[in-house]
Amino acid sequence: MMKVVFHVDMDNTPVFELALANITNFLKDVGAENADVALLANGFAVKLFVKASGMKFKERLEELHKQGVKFYVCNNALNAHNINKEDIFEFCEVVPAGVTKLIELQNEGYAYIKP
Amino acid sequence: MMKVVFHVDMDNTPVFELALANITNFLKDVGAENADVALLANGFAVKLFVKASGMKFKERLEELHKQGVKFYVCNNALNAHNINKEDIFEFCEVVPAGVTKLIELQNEGYAYIKP
Amino acid sequence: MMKVVFHVDMDNTPVFELALANITNFLKDVGAENADVALLANGFAVKLFVKASGMKFKERLEELHKQGVKFYVCNNALNAHNINKEDIFEFCEVVPAGVTKLIELQNEGYAYIKP
Repeated sequence: MMKVVFHVDMDNTPVFELALANITNFLKDVGAENADVALLANGFAVKLFVKASGMKFKERLEELHKQGVKFYVCNNALNAHNINKEDIFEFCEVVPAGVTKLIELQNEGYAYIKP
Repeated sequence: MMKVVFHVDMDNTPVFELALANITNFLKDVGAENADVALLANGFAVKLFVKASGMKFKERLEELHKQGVKFYVCNNALNAHNINKEDIFEFCEVVPAGVTKLIELQNEGYAYIKP
Repeated sequence: MMKVVFHVDMDNTPVFELALANITNFLKDVGAENADVALLANGFAVKLFVKASGMKFKERLEELHKQGVKFYVCNNALNAHNINKEDIFEFCEVVPAGVTKLIELQNEGYAYIKP
């Protein structure tokens, strides 16, 4: 099993597109059954997961989620941007502190990639 | 003990603010006594630690330093930007090559985060 | 042996210059014989390795290659930018998926640095 966490913290569309392409290509390369992929969003990047504004990415994110990709969203960042948990996509998991999750995943053997 | 090194290399204020918020939130989440946090600055980011121009961040950096955060500044980058060691904040530790320190820390089990 | 992979994914000249300076300084600091250095380019960064447009960097890249630095270029990214393998510098190695290589290298003990 190849384990990897992608980290995004800016609400920059080209970088986010790159992260999604990275994940898609990786799953195609090794097969979803051999991959354990997480994407963690903190900082400004949590805005990309707000239902009202993130519709552009919704289908692609859902498709990746169906292939087993986990989407973690930082609660500190949601608070900093006055976003309610209810307003982000249902397939996301809110974690108390994104940084803590990034460290835990690396400690569990996940490679770290910052697109 | 959760070990992490944050890497900054641009003198970009929003990114640096994000790095400081990351550290602050992490310490709040796990408790300073359970965290071993380093911030390594190389490239353009060393400019943020110059006393004469970094006063905006001084108090927050000092507060983090009191909580045990170590600030490493790359000497190669200081030389590249004609900055004297004496001109950076006293709570920083100058290391000969920032990249070498980043590798050493990762080899010692520090997770890597690039805000 | 100190092992490190540098990851570049934007065709942003200042960032690429920084990555090359990082590598140069690191080799000088620890000695090329004690270093195992890779640079992996995916996303937009593959454009920097196209012969016709990357001449500005050619000499420095060749010099680093002579010191043992490996340059990996992502084939998915080449396809996405309609670049033929024949059009990139000969000293590069094309890998099927850059992300997979980044994970493999980290699993082999390479530290990860994103300039």
